[in-house]
Amino acid sequence: MMLSEKSKIVLIGTGNVGTQLAQSFAERHINFKQLAGRTFSKMDADADLYIIAVKDDAIANVVARMPETMGIVVHTAGSVDLTDLSAKFTRYGVFYPLQTFSKNRKLDFSEIPVLIEAGDEQTLSGLKSFASILTKNVGMATSERRRMLHLSAVFACNFVNHLYALAEDIVQKSGFDIDILKPLIIETAQKVQQMKPVEAQTGPAVRYDKTVMAKHLALLQNDKTKQQIYALLSENIHTFNR
Amino acid sequence: MMLSEKSKIVLIGTGNVGTQLAQSFAERHINFKQLAGRTFSKMDADADLYIIAVKDDAIANVVARMPETMGIVVHTAGSVDLTDLSAKFTRYGVFYPLQTFSKNRKLDFSEIPVLIEAGDEQTLSGLKSFASILTKNVGMATSERRRMLHLSAVFACNFVNHLYALAEDIVQKSGFDIDILKPLIIETAQKVQQMKPVEAQTGPAVRYDKTVMAKHLALLQNDKTKQQIYALLSENIHTFNR
Repeated sequence: MMLSEKSKIVLIGTGNVGTQLAQSFAERHINFKQLAGRTFSKMDADADLYIIAVKDDAIANVVARMPETMGIVVHTAGSVDLTDLSAKFTRYGVFYPLQTFSKNRKLDFSEIPVLIEAGDEQTLSGLKSFASILTKNVGMATSERRRMLHLSAVFACNFVNHLYALAEDIVQKSGFDIDILKPLIIETAQKVQQMKPVEAQTGPAVRYDKTVMAKHLALLQNDKTKQQIYALLSENIHTFNR
Repeated sequence: MMLSEKSKIVLIGTGNVGTQLAQSFAERHINFKQLAGRTFSKMDADADLYIIAVKDDAIANVVARMPETMGIVVHTAGSVDLTDLSAKFTRYGVFYPLQTFSKNRKLDFSEIPVLIEAGDEQTLSGLKSFASILTKNVGMATSERRRMLHLSAVFACNFVNHLYALAEDIVQKSGFDIDILKPLIIETAQKVQQMKPVEAQTGPAVRYDKTVMAKHLALLQNDKTKQQIYALLSENIHTFNR
């Protein structure tokens, strides 16, 4: 079965991913119904596609409360196995968009990589046609490869964002605010669109400038956590780029 | 004295910062002469402005080899004090561009924040007029505030770039390459142009999803350094966002 804009779709979840999917479905005139993850009671059993876009640890609960169906059932999680859906459903898969979603931030879905996986070839081809309505960037990944991708995304996004938060903390102590760092933040991300990160590396750690590093550690003397992060990452930059 | 495009400028250094400054000077038809940091022998003593754009630990050596001059002498370093120039020169200051520079990557200098500082008011106003030729983003910062700004930039840029390098390492183990992470990297940087980093935080650590974190740590079992970074940053995200 080919999935298209006219297929009947049930989207479960109203969090960051659910909200963004709903928005891009609406833009593409996809026929869908959105349900809250924990409050749905009667769900149609005759939809063509069910997308479970809830927190990882809520997926099992949603599955348990879903009707039996011949439709395709997918989850959107980076680190949950395909086989978590195989006990109950005949046609199942994964639809993993590799992006950071926030409720209030609109995204251009057509650039977002979506990794799919399915229990059988026909379901895979159905998911592929559906994903292609949303994005030009559709790939296939086994659960194992997807888990590794998700891990890399934690480094490239979640940890990076936390460093922005720490930088904001520090910049405020300089009497400036984060605005002064924004051109730097953008340029750092843009550099690695063209250069390898290892070639883009700058700063005291890669120069192994011990004087500057000692000054920085001294500035962080009242903040043991930032000091620990500074020491660990600086040491690793030095080792990694040697 | 007001500095202008017609002032006589000596730019010392051919590294990342020197190369980028030379390029933006040329674009603005600024009258300058660029010299290598360690090889210059005879330097004119009658220039209006000398910009020392060399590694922090090479600044003292350059200073020692420079002629005595009535021109303004500045360095471009984030963590070197203004007073490092006060022993030899009458008119001295700091010209600190807050950006990551690589030789082969062209930048729009007009968006780059430049922080200036000087030993006297007249020199400060000369530097301000000069910096304004290059960028619309000129600010003033004492050596103490500049050092703190530099530290925040290490978190927002150098450490972030290292996380990109680690993410590339991991993504290759998934059979993909860094291209698949590029939309995520850009979006992560763009989010914090509008949202506070703490509000933009996503991922297993902020949800405190112990199952996913345990899976990720297991995937990193043969890479103690990445495991250590994962554990430290995840724990800190949890604490920071609680």
